[in-house]
Amino acid sequence: MQTHLLTIGDEILIGQIVDTNSPWMSRELNLRGMAVSGKSSVGDTRQAIIDGIEHAASRADVVIMTGGLGPTKDDITKKTLAEMFGSGMAFHPETYQQIESYFTKVGRPTPPAMRDQSTLPEKALILRNKVGTAPGMWFEDKGKIYISLPGVPFEMEYLMTAEVLPRLQQRFQPQPIIHRTLLTAGEGESNIAKRIEAFEDALPPQIKLAYLPALGQVRLRLSGTWDGAPTPEAEAQMTALVESKKSELLALIPDLVYGEEKESLEEVVGKILISQHKKFGTAESCTGGYVAHLITSVPGSSEYFPGSVVSYSYEMKEKLLNVRPETLQKFGAVSEETVREMALGALDTLGLDVSLAISGIAGPGGGMPEKPVGTVWMAVSDRERTVAIKHVFGRDRIKNIQLTGTYALNLVRKFLLGQV
Amino acid sequence: MQTHLLTIGDEILIGQIVDTNSPWMSRELNLRGMAVSGKSSVGDTRQAIIDGIEHAASRADVVIMTGGLGPTKDDITKKTLAEMFGSGMAFHPETYQQIESYFTKVGRPTPPAMRDQSTLPEKALILRNKVGTAPGMWFEDKGKIYISLPGVPFEMEYLMTAEVLPRLQQRFQPQPIIHRTLLTAGEGESNIAKRIEAFEDALPPQIKLAYLPALGQVRLRLSGTWDGAPTPEAEAQMTALVESKKSELLALIPDLVYGEEKESLEEVVGKILISQHKKFGTAESCTGGYVAHLITSVPGSSEYFPGSVVSYSYEMKEKLLNVRPETLQKFGAVSEETVREMALGALDTLGLDVSLAISGIAGPGGGMPEKPVGTVWMAVSDRERTVAIKHVFGRDRIKNIQLTGTYALNLVRKFLLGQV
Repeated sequence: MQTHLLTIGDEILIGQIVDTNSPWMSRELNLRGMAVSGKSSVGDTRQAIIDGIEHAASRADVVIMTGGLGPTKDDITKKTLAEMFGSGMAFHPETYQQIESYFTKVGRPTPPAMRDQSTLPEKALILRNKVGTAPGMWFEDKGKIYISLPGVPFEMEYLMTAEVLPRLQQRFQPQPIIHRTLLTAGEGESNIAKRIEAFEDALPPQIKLAYLPALGQVRLRLSGTWDGAPTPEAEAQMTALVESKKSELLALIPDLVYGEEKESLEEVVGKILISQHKKFGTAESCTGGYVAHLITSVPGSSEYFPGSVVSYSYEMKEKLLNVRPETLQKFGAVSEETVREMALGALDTLGLDVSLAISGIAGPGGGMPEKPVGTVWMAVSDRERTVAIKHVFGRDRIKNIQLTGTYALNLVRKFLLGQV
Repeated sequence: MQTHLLTIGDEILIGQIVDTNSPWMSRELNLRGMAVSGKSSVGDTRQAIIDGIEHAASRADVVIMTGGLGPTKDDITKKTLAEMFGSGMAFHPETYQQIESYFTKVGRPTPPAMRDQSTLPEKALILRNKVGTAPGMWFEDKGKIYISLPGVPFEMEYLMTAEVLPRLQQRFQPQPIIHRTLLTAGEGESNIAKRIEAFEDALPPQIKLAYLPALGQVRLRLSGTWDGAPTPEAEAQMTALVESKKSELLALIPDLVYGEEKESLEEVVGKILISQHKKFGTAESCTGGYVAHLITSVPGSSEYFPGSVVSYSYEMKEKLLNVRPETLQKFGAVSEETVREMALGALDTLGLDVSLAISGIAGPGGGMPEKPVGTVWMAVSDRERTVAIKHVFGRDRIKNIQLTGTYALNLVRKFLLGQV
């Protein structure tokens, strides 16, 4: 069984909104073993919609449309669907009652446009929308299923969860897919590929490995499927196989893996800090508070994070972090000596068990022959031990700040685990 | 001229990543008068790619592909393109040199996989990627143009800006569209719409107004086109008309507009600080360094930003910002009294002319009946004058932090300009 997602609306084609509906639907379908084989977007004209639906149906068994429904929109989607499937339109009393009770609940009169909203294609199975005014529609035509949902994310999510997914599962009894993901930081795609080449070549054909890169991180996803019946036994067997492959993969690159599935690096660091009962904070120069922002984007981070100092100027490095003027003068702000002193100073100033200090040249200005733009020194210290590392990133300021954040958090993680 | 955007990669179909490339490309093409008529996504198998490209080419003159390039094994786009356009593959020395110099700069050996990366279809015009390792490719076949770009956003953006957009403009000479954008902060779409309703209704038919909302901000874009020839005179005339409408619009909502075109709020604040020769810094609790990060994401911010204090704990508020223990005890950390003392403390600790202090409940925990999650107090002070404001945002932690950033920077802007 193949699914195609079709978004309808000019706002997507002109780039006014980012489509977050499709990723959500894709994830929910995939989790249930229903593959999305393609996605497309068309504008909201009759011809574009017909063309988009015909193309989708030529590639898939199920077409799920979002957008192009609702009271302020031109109702073109609904009418085009009725026309395509040779259906008349009729007033649908249950829908109108649903809308009326919705407006009663929010204490407003039902707008006249809601009569149109309740006039629906007769051939459609109406999917009741309990969280909004535009119902979903389910058509079947020449062996294919066509589902139309409103584009408002929480209405779409409600209708998918309550109506669409259970019906599709019952109809198609899809083959499950078993996914396991390892999260790595600090190494590029091609170097990882080299280290796990033999493993990858030896994977059985039912298991696929995908590299999903982001700035400074690569997620490695193993996905297992099988041809036979989707029995609980077969599923358990494939789960065990994917799990064992995941363990093999982890054993090849234990130094690169910081977590599994959906964790973020800042969440992982937070969990280690909690388990070790340690207070952590940062002394940041070139990242300007970005690492503190990452740490505090995790709910509950106040348990291990008392605060940070952003010391952009020499003066603040001296005054708030006790960096010696001679050190700054002799070695410069971007140096091993300075970040070591910053890290020690942060322990005192912020009352920390472990500190991270960062100083670098984010760019685009400020580069020197021996310290080009992108040079970043970072140090982690618990007073007994201070580890300092230099990286040289690129020329893009924002990218340098973000990469530094990833590498620095990974250094903190390794420091806490005794791996550096 | 019609353009179709095609994203290649299983990661989009399984919903692991949100496609932000397509909206960016759509906006940039639209700004230059080139319409996007459709978008689609396919998986990274040979057949899916061929199918996706053929479908796209049947609907458009230009097909722009992203993704499916890069050093690892799941990248078969390049080979499929060579096959489709009957092209052999050849080692491309310039690309290899480019990659080698990239690795030399970051002080790492060039991985062997980079020889494959530099083996490219002979019939393609190679678009040099100065910010990464995967070059872009430009094919022409049977009157259509096919462009393949890497999926990493900043690499795609670089290649679009430096290589693709100028070439498309030169080739198709699209009818110009004159855009002027006013940037507003601190007011919602529907309230703005109410205030400018008469202006909007009276706009001539050649000029369109679009509302482009983001968190806490709305961009108002006026776009003018005309039917006649794209002569310099006609363009100058339309430019003058759009400019005059922009001035009218600005006069209606001067209190909401913080800038024009592509400026960010943090850039605008930075420019005012430079012109007023003032040093600025922050004392942040719930935003955890996010505002300092925004300020320092602007190149050259060290001129006006010496540093910040992130004081997450009571202790740090007392120690680093001189907040009195009685104040915290009596009014709590999230109170007008506390942010006022934080702002004054930051002036001393950081040696500032103007300070911003923020304390709030980002959530999801920590709410109280009289101070629900989303409650944020912020204060701006230059010692003589301190302005404090309370906002109540929603329940989402990340959104609360980002909204606070926007509202706080806008408050600083108005304070510096004497508007609050």
